[in-house]
Amino acid sequence: MSFEPFAPAVYQNRREKLRARMRQAGHKALLVSHAANRFYLSGFELSDSQCNESSGMLLIRVDGPDKLLTDPRFLDAARRLWPEDDIFIYAGQRFAQIREFLSKTHSGPIAFESRAMSVDTHGHLRESLDLAPTHGLVEELRRFKEPEELKRLELSCAVNERVMRAAPDVLLPGRSEGEIAWRLEQLFRDFGATELAFSPIVAVDANAALPHAEPGRDVVKDECMVLVDMGGRYAEYNSDQTRTFWVGNRPPDHFRKALELTQQAQAKAIKAIRPGLTFAEAYQAARGYFERFGVEKAFTHALGHGIGLETHEFPSLSPVAQGTLEPGMVVTVEPGLYYPEWGGIRWEHMVAVTEDGCRILGQGA
Amino acid sequence: MSFEPFAPAVYQNRREKLRARMRQAGHKALLVSHAANRFYLSGFELSDSQCNESSGMLLIRVDGPDKLLTDPRFLDAARRLWPEDDIFIYAGQRFAQIREFLSKTHSGPIAFESRAMSVDTHGHLRESLDLAPTHGLVEELRRFKEPEELKRLELSCAVNERVMRAAPDVLLPGRSEGEIAWRLEQLFRDFGATELAFSPIVAVDANAALPHAEPGRDVVKDECMVLVDMGGRYAEYNSDQTRTFWVGNRPPDHFRKALELTQQAQAKAIKAIRPGLTFAEAYQAARGYFERFGVEKAFTHALGHGIGLETHEFPSLSPVAQGTLEPGMVVTVEPGLYYPEWGGIRWEHMVAVTEDGCRILGQGA
Repeated sequence: MSFEPFAPAVYQNRREKLRARMRQAGHKALLVSHAANRFYLSGFELSDSQCNESSGMLLIRVDGPDKLLTDPRFLDAARRLWPEDDIFIYAGQRFAQIREFLSKTHSGPIAFESRAMSVDTHGHLRESLDLAPTHGLVEELRRFKEPEELKRLELSCAVNERVMRAAPDVLLPGRSEGEIAWRLEQLFRDFGATELAFSPIVAVDANAALPHAEPGRDVVKDECMVLVDMGGRYAEYNSDQTRTFWVGNRPPDHFRKALELTQQAQAKAIKAIRPGLTFAEAYQAARGYFERFGVEKAFTHALGHGIGLETHEFPSLSPVAQGTLEPGMVVTVEPGLYYPEWGGIRWEHMVAVTEDGCRILGQGA
Repeated sequence: MSFEPFAPAVYQNRREKLRARMRQAGHKALLVSHAANRFYLSGFELSDSQCNESSGMLLIRVDGPDKLLTDPRFLDAARRLWPEDDIFIYAGQRFAQIREFLSKTHSGPIAFESRAMSVDTHGHLRESLDLAPTHGLVEELRRFKEPEELKRLELSCAVNERVMRAAPDVLLPGRSEGEIAWRLEQLFRDFGATELAFSPIVAVDANAALPHAEPGRDVVKDECMVLVDMGGRYAEYNSDQTRTFWVGNRPPDHFRKALELTQQAQAKAIKAIRPGLTFAEAYQAARGYFERFGVEKAFTHALGHGIGLETHEFPSLSPVAQGTLEPGMVVTVEPGLYYPEWGGIRWEHMVAVTEDGCRILGQGA
């Protein structure tokens, strides 16, 4: 890894911004249990080892000091990031210990992230704590990427661009979707990614019409289409891009036409994206273009989604989403046209919303 | 992938067993939201795409038919596994649609998995549903591995054995922990694993004393120790093994002695493991051996854990765990001795509890 962790001041600054929001919302303490939120505020453990196994929580208080709660496995990692006095280690009777610690540390209601706490954990903690459900407090900060985050997203997208540039040389007749996915994954790692951002999609011909196509045993042939939707994590930040390739020299008209329409729809959306545009309007920019050619029924999903420490973040650029684009948001722009008979096209880049428009990320790769 | 999915009858049979347990517990319907439980009962989607994004749920009813609830992305995958009439697709106002579907499908209380449902989801669903918290109903089935599952775990462990056998040839002076972890990951994939089972540990010298050592920039030298704790997923089932290697020809006495004690402690535990032994007694079999040599304080964690579709499953072989080993359980046996000054040793195999003892998995590799 060639990048350095953020300086402690970066996390401190984010926690100060969170405190301001907590004051506005009337919360004196917030228990942060969502892994990406925890990492965003502290640099401590971006992921949990399993979805049902927490690596730890933060207690953020408007009057500080903030506490890091974790188990003995992570003590060393915690010490590198957090003052020893503000680390609480639980083991054995975990819930009883956490309850006792929180009770003596903070009196009064404690807000918690209702989308990132199980009913079971909540049941244990509320035995002796006054818990108040909230959601989105940290996500509202995370949706606006800081300059240093934008730089990392740019670098992460550049890795993705390099993989997509090499992809035609990997899509050789005789190779299966699964084999190609693995070779492209190796390129992500060779080019610096620490892991894939999500399960890859490599879909030959009609498989491309399935929105959740797992790379399988179907094989690339001379003269076929391959849809590749992949992303990597680089410097902690995720990328997500899609290209649709023709293997051979004779792409049929239906392929060429759908490809051109999709690329044009993406161009229209990217041209439209600017601060103040609603999420639904962004979607409609692509959809409206498809409507002019009577193909809009083949565009079956949202235009895109926010991305950052997680692959799927706020907002969703869907026709029913509420809200408007603002500077600092990073979203995917991924229109597609799908035809069960022969496959389909998706074309995806990531853009950062600027003061007066947007900028495609990773192009300087 | 060279293995085939289980036949539909396998999942049907598991659901029948679950129904028997539900009747005993007085539940007429169970909403299954934990990803590995969902997969175990249906073959549908082993993982969620993010911890906060569900790929779907099952509604299991004592009187059937069972329902699969998912979103449009997974419709095709669902159709391959489930009768069309029993698939419910939600989109848009997800919670309202799920509530309406459940209300009209089942009257009366619905049990749910309290460790696999967020407070937020629970709040939305209980607006018009009578929900009853449960946990462990499916996990109680999963703890006893079926013969076909044991076969897959055996194969998965065999892949791990092959990687560990090749590891000394990869642990070359000058390579960093991170580089070695990636090369070993490639071997897992070359040997057939579809992904790693968990974040790998490759720890040089003193790093091996940290329980959560992330492979970093520290480099293998001539005459150093390297602890490797890795596992892969093969045929859907996870493996988890640890070896501690000496790179060079002159392992110091403290290394050789700790290695021998750890291997002997593992042998004692494996010899002791049989049906009827309590989890705490299994732990004590290793601990007791360390006590004879006065090194037990350096053994700082549990002896092992269940493993299968997930890396960490029931039971925990810890001194405070309640319960006894029974035939069909598969657990790791991984004693260790840790010394912050120079590192430490961990030695781990997976065993299947048999009728009269246990069997180490993957040895026929």
